[in-house]
Amino acid sequence: MRVPRPTAYRPRFLSTPPPIPPPVRPRSRLMRIARTATRAAAFVVFSATFGIVLVTGGIFVHDAFTYNERHLDRVPVSPLALHPERGGPKNLPIANALVGDEDEEATQEVKNKPKLVIVGGGWGAVSVLQSLYAGEYHVTVVSPDTFTTFTPLLPSAAVGTVSVRSLIEPLRKIIARLHGQLINAKAVDLVMSERLLEIETTLANGQKENIYIPYDKLVIAVGSVSSTHGVPGLQNCYQLKTVADAQAIRRRILENFETASLPTTTPEERKRLLSFVICGGGPTGVETAAEIYDLCQEDIINYYPKICRNEVSIHVIQSREHILNTYSEAISKYAENKFKRDDVELITSARVVAVHPTHVVYSIRDPETGKVTEHDIPSNFVLWSTGIAMNPFTARVSSLLPNQVHKKAIEVDAQLRVKGAPLGDVYAVGDCSTIETSVVSHLLELVDEADKNKDGKIDFEEWEFMVRRIKQKIPMAASQLEKVRQLFDLYDSDADNTLTLNELAVLLQEIGNKITSLPATAQVASQQGKYIGHKLHLLASQRNTLLANDLPPTTDEAVSPPFKYLHLGSLAYIGNAAVFDMGGLSFMGGLVAMYAWRSIYWSEQVSMRTRALLMIDWVIRGVWGRDLSKL
Amino acid sequence: MRVPRPTAYRPRFLSTPPPIPPPVRPRSRLMRIARTATRAAAFVVFSATFGIVLVTGGIFVHDAFTYNERHLDRVPVSPLALHPERGGPKNLPIANALVGDEDEEATQEVKNKPKLVIVGGGWGAVSVLQSLYAGEYHVTVVSPDTFTTFTPLLPSAAVGTVSVRSLIEPLRKIIARLHGQLINAKAVDLVMSERLLEIETTLANGQKENIYIPYDKLVIAVGSVSSTHGVPGLQNCYQLKTVADAQAIRRRILENFETASLPTTTPEERKRLLSFVICGGGPTGVETAAEIYDLCQEDIINYYPKICRNEVSIHVIQSREHILNTYSEAISKYAENKFKRDDVELITSARVVAVHPTHVVYSIRDPETGKVTEHDIPSNFVLWSTGIAMNPFTARVSSLLPNQVHKKAIEVDAQLRVKGAPLGDVYAVGDCSTIETSVVSHLLELVDEADKNKDGKIDFEEWEFMVRRIKQKIPMAASQLEKVRQLFDLYDSDADNTLTLNELAVLLQEIGNKITSLPATAQVASQQGKYIGHKLHLLASQRNTLLANDLPPTTDEAVSPPFKYLHLGSLAYIGNAAVFDMGGLSFMGGLVAMYAWRSIYWSEQVSMRTRALLMIDWVIRGVWGRDLSKL
Repeated sequence: MRVPRPTAYRPRFLSTPPPIPPPVRPRSRLMRIARTATRAAAFVVFSATFGIVLVTGGIFVHDAFTYNERHLDRVPVSPLALHPERGGPKNLPIANALVGDEDEEATQEVKNKPKLVIVGGGWGAVSVLQSLYAGEYHVTVVSPDTFTTFTPLLPSAAVGTVSVRSLIEPLRKIIARLHGQLINAKAVDLVMSERLLEIETTLANGQKENIYIPYDKLVIAVGSVSSTHGVPGLQNCYQLKTVADAQAIRRRILENFETASLPTTTPEERKRLLSFVICGGGPTGVETAAEIYDLCQEDIINYYPKICRNEVSIHVIQSREHILNTYSEAISKYAENKFKRDDVELITSARVVAVHPTHVVYSIRDPETGKVTEHDIPSNFVLWSTGIAMNPFTARVSSLLPNQVHKKAIEVDAQLRVKGAPLGDVYAVGDCSTIETSVVSHLLELVDEADKNKDGKIDFEEWEFMVRRIKQKIPMAASQLEKVRQLFDLYDSDADNTLTLNELAVLLQEIGNKITSLPATAQVASQQGKYIGHKLHLLASQRNTLLANDLPPTTDEAVSPPFKYLHLGSLAYIGNAAVFDMGGLSFMGGLVAMYAWRSIYWSEQVSMRTRALLMIDWVIRGVWGRDLSKL
Repeated sequence: MRVPRPTAYRPRFLSTPPPIPPPVRPRSRLMRIARTATRAAAFVVFSATFGIVLVTGGIFVHDAFTYNERHLDRVPVSPLALHPERGGPKNLPIANALVGDEDEEATQEVKNKPKLVIVGGGWGAVSVLQSLYAGEYHVTVVSPDTFTTFTPLLPSAAVGTVSVRSLIEPLRKIIARLHGQLINAKAVDLVMSERLLEIETTLANGQKENIYIPYDKLVIAVGSVSSTHGVPGLQNCYQLKTVADAQAIRRRILENFETASLPTTTPEERKRLLSFVICGGGPTGVETAAEIYDLCQEDIINYYPKICRNEVSIHVIQSREHILNTYSEAISKYAENKFKRDDVELITSARVVAVHPTHVVYSIRDPETGKVTEHDIPSNFVLWSTGIAMNPFTARVSSLLPNQVHKKAIEVDAQLRVKGAPLGDVYAVGDCSTIETSVVSHLLELVDEADKNKDGKIDFEEWEFMVRRIKQKIPMAASQLEKVRQLFDLYDSDADNTLTLNELAVLLQEIGNKITSLPATAQVASQQGKYIGHKLHLLASQRNTLLANDLPPTTDEAVSPPFKYLHLGSLAYIGNAAVFDMGGLSFMGGLVAMYAWRSIYWSEQVSMRTRALLMIDWVIRGVWGRDLSKL
C-alpha cells in the first residue's frame, strides 16, 4: 500500500506547485545499470543452463529408447548363397546369391535387379553409392576396408589433432540405404567375357580363397598406391594414405619424443630422433609438416623436457622449385614464408636419392654449374608423399586390354567407360583411372563421320562438324579447339582450304598433347563417382521404361553427356594458417582462414556422425590439447 | 509524428461515452492458451539456441587463443643428464640428473628434494601422484605405457561402446602438476643396498639399454599379469587388461562378423566364427559377454546379413557354481536370469582344459557320480579373464628378499612397506602387492613387547595389550580379535589363566588363517595409492620441520596409522542392466541401474577430459550406434 503524500508542506503562494526535483541519488544510474546487468547475466546463465538441460534431456530420453531386447526369428537364406555353384575359367564358386539377399522385403526386391558391383571404398565408390537411387540395382561393394576415409584430414589425424575414428564411416551404413551388400575382400582379376569379378577372401585361419562375383555393371574405384620413383629404401618410409598409416605415424612421432626424453639417449641421437623429414612438397607433405610443427608448439612444449621441443627440426624435400607448386605463385610464396618463420627447412629442387633407417640422402643440382651434390639428414621419421602408381588390380585390368597403354592408371573414355572393355559394362573412377586425351586415336572414326562428301578430305564445314564431335568424345580438348578457323588455317599447310588425313593427324596429335589429365584428387574422384551414380540411375529408370515398351536398353551416350570436371579450388593447411586457390583467385591468412579451411572440410563430411565427431575433436584440442598417449 | 484524433465523430449527447463492449470472441481462451504456448515455445527455442550459441561462442573464442607461435630460447641442461656417470653392481649409467630437471624454476626447485620413484602407471601409481603435494619430492615415474587406463570400462571399449582414447590419460599431464618426469621404460631389477632401480629402455633401433635410477623412496605399482592356471593354449586367447587388448578384441569381433558375411564361408564355419567364448565369470568376463550381446542386438542386427545376428552364440565358462560369485547371491541369480533371457550360455562348475585355435575344451564333473566329461565349443574368439599372477619385475623383487614367500604378489606390512626391504625405502601398492596376514610370524616380537613381567607367559592383562599391538601391526586381524576374553579362554587349554608360547602360537596361526587378503581390484589399489601419497606428504612436511630443528627424520609409524581398506561396494554391467553390491545391500535393475552404473564410473574419471570424452561416446552411441569399422 502506498502512503499518500502529505500536502501540508506545499507552499500556497503559487496556484500550481512547482515540480519537486527528485532527491539526488548519485548512484541511481549506476545501480540501474548494475541491476540491468545482473538481470541480463541471470538471463544469460539461465538460458545457457536451460538450453544445455534441454539438449541433454532430449539426448537422454532418446538414448533410453536405443536399447532393444527384440529377438529375431529364423531368417530365410537362399541355398545358393550357402553352397554356391562353380564356374568361370578357373572353376571357382560363383556368388550368384548372397546370404543377405533374403533378409527383408527391400533386399528381396532388389535381388533380381541388374547386379552393380563397385570395387573400392574411397571417394569415388562412396560418391557412386550416394548418388544411386534405392531399388534400381542389386549393389555389391567389394572392399578390403570396411569403412571409407576422409583422406584430406589424415595429416591432422597423424598428430592427434583429430581422432582417426572421426575420419571414417562404415561402408555398411552407406550401403544400407541401397539395401546392398559389402564383401570385405580384395579384387584380383576380371573375366570380362563372362562378366565375373574374381575376388580374394581371407578365411579365419589366414588362408585365401578366391570366388567370382557376377556383375552387369562394374565400377572400378580402387584408388592408387604410392609411386616409388625408383628410390631405394622406401620400406624405411611412412606413407599417409590410410588411417592405419596415420596411426602408425602418430605412434612413431610420440615414440621419438619419448625416446628423446630417456636418460639413455645421447645428444646426437636425440637430434636425430627429433628430425622429421617429409619427401614431397604437395598438400599432404606440407600439411603434415605443419601439423608436426603445431604438435610441438602447442603440446610437446608443455609436457616434455624443454630440450625435446628445442631440438626439433622439420625438413621438407621438394623436387620442384617451390612447395605447393600446383597452387598459385602467391600461395607458394605465402606458405614458404610461413615455414621460414616457423623454422621448417625447405629443400627445393632436390631429389631424394635413398632412404636409410637412420638418415635420408638427397641430391641438389647447382643451377649454374650443373654440379650435383649429395647431402644427408639424420632422421627417425621419413614421410613419403609424392606421386601415385597403379595398384595390382588396376595393373591386372590394364594388362587384360590391348589398347591400355597408360603407365599410371586405366584409360577411360569421356563416359568413364574402361577403354577396350565391352561397352557399358565396366567403368573406372578416381585415382585408378585417367580420361583419354589422345584425340588422334579417333582419327579414322572422326573422318568417317565428318567427311560427308566422302572425298577423303575435310573442308571447313566438315571441320566444324568434326570439332563438335571431338568435343563430345574428348571434352577436355574443348579449350584447345576454341579457335576453329585459325586451327584449320594453321594446319592446312598447302592452303588448299581442305585438311588431308596427314594434316589432320598432325593437328589432332598436337591437340591431344596439349591436354593435361585431371589430377589424382578427392575432388575429381568425387565428381566422377557422382556422374556414374547419376548415369546408372538414368540407365536404370530408362531401361525400365524401355523394357516396358519392348525397346532395346539405351546406351550411355543416349542418357548422359560426357563427364565434365568442374574445379572448385584447392586448399591447404599450413599451420594456424590456410591457403585457398579458387581457380585464379587466391586467399590466404591466419586463424580466420584456418577456421574457413575447417568449415569447408566439415561440410564435405560423408555423415552427420563424422561431422559431430570432428567438431568435438577440434573443441577437445582447444580445451585440453592433443592426447599425447603413445598408443 | 502522431496525427491528433478528430473529435467530430464523438457523439455529443453523452458527457462520457459508454464503454463499448469488446466483440465476443468465442476462441479467445483457446487463442490465449495458444498464444501463451507459442510464446513459451519461442522462449524455449530462443533460450536453447541462445545457450548453445553462447557455449559455442565461448569455446570458439577460447580456441582462437590456443594457437601459439612463441619460440623457446636455449634451455639449460645439466651435463650430468647428457653424460651420466656409471656405477652400481653392474656398472651401468646412473641417472642422477634428468634432461628436464633444469627446465623451469619449479623443476629446479624440486631437483634436490628426496627422489621419489614410482614404478607403474595404473590405479595405484596415479593415486599416489594425485595425493602428493607439489614441491616435496623429485618425482620420477617409470612406466612402459605413457598413459593411465580406466580399466573398468575396457569391456565397453572392446566392442566400441566407448572409444579406447576416452579411457586413457597421458601420465605426463598428471605428473606435470608435481613438476616430475616420466621415463618410458620397464623396471627390471632393484639394488636395495644402493637404492638403485634398474630399468630397461628401448632405443630407436630396437636395442635395449639398461640404466640405474636412484631413489630415496620407491613405490612399486606394476600391477599383475594373467594367471594361466596351467591351461595349455593360452596364446590362442585374448586378454582384457590394456587398451591394446580392447582394440585387438574389437578388431577380432568385427573380423568374425565380416568373415561370416563372406560368400566363401561355409555354414559350419559361420557358426564357429560367431561363437564367442569367455573363460571366467567374474566382472570382466560377465561385462564382456554383456557388451558383445549389446553389440549384436543394437548394431550388428541393423547392418550385417541377418543370419550373422541369428547364429551368434555367447558362452561363459565359470569354475564356480555361479557367475559373479564374489557378489551377493541375489546379484548372481539376477545376472544369471538376465543371461538366460539373452541366450547367453552359462557353463558353471566347469574347468577349461585347453584352448585350441579353433575350439575350447572344458570339463565338467558330475556332482553326483563324480564322473568328469569333456566338451568342445568351436570358437574363433576366446577371452581369458581369470586370476592374476606376478609380472617379471614383481617376481624379481620377491626373489631378492628371503622372507617373501607369497606366490602371487609381494608381501607388504600394514604400512605397505615391502617386507624385508630397508624400512621405509620401498613400498608396494595394488595388484602386485598383498598385505601380510600371518600373525604368528610376529610371535616373538609380540611376546617381547607384551610380557611385562618377563615370565615367558602371557596373562590376560598382557593379552589385552598384545591384542592392541596385533591390531596395529595387522589391522586386517581386527575382526578376528573382537572377543578378547573368549579367545583367551578358548586357547588357554590348561586353564591356568595364562597363555604359554605354544598356546599363543596356535592362537595366532589360526587367526592368521582366517584373514582373507584384499581382492586385486582398482578400488584397493586406489585407496592404497592415496594412503602412500598422503603418508609421503606427511613424511616430507615433518622431515622439513625436524631437519630445521636438527632432529632425526620420523618413521612411517610416527606419521600415519596402518592402511585400512574401506570397501565401497562392487558393481557390474550385465547388458542394459547393472548390479550393485554395497556391502550387504544389493541393488539391481534395468536401464536406470545402467545409467547409475555409468554415473559412478563417470565420477571416478581421472580428468575432466576423459569425463567429457566418455559422455560424448555414450551420446554418440545413442544417436548413431557403435562404429562398425574394422580398424
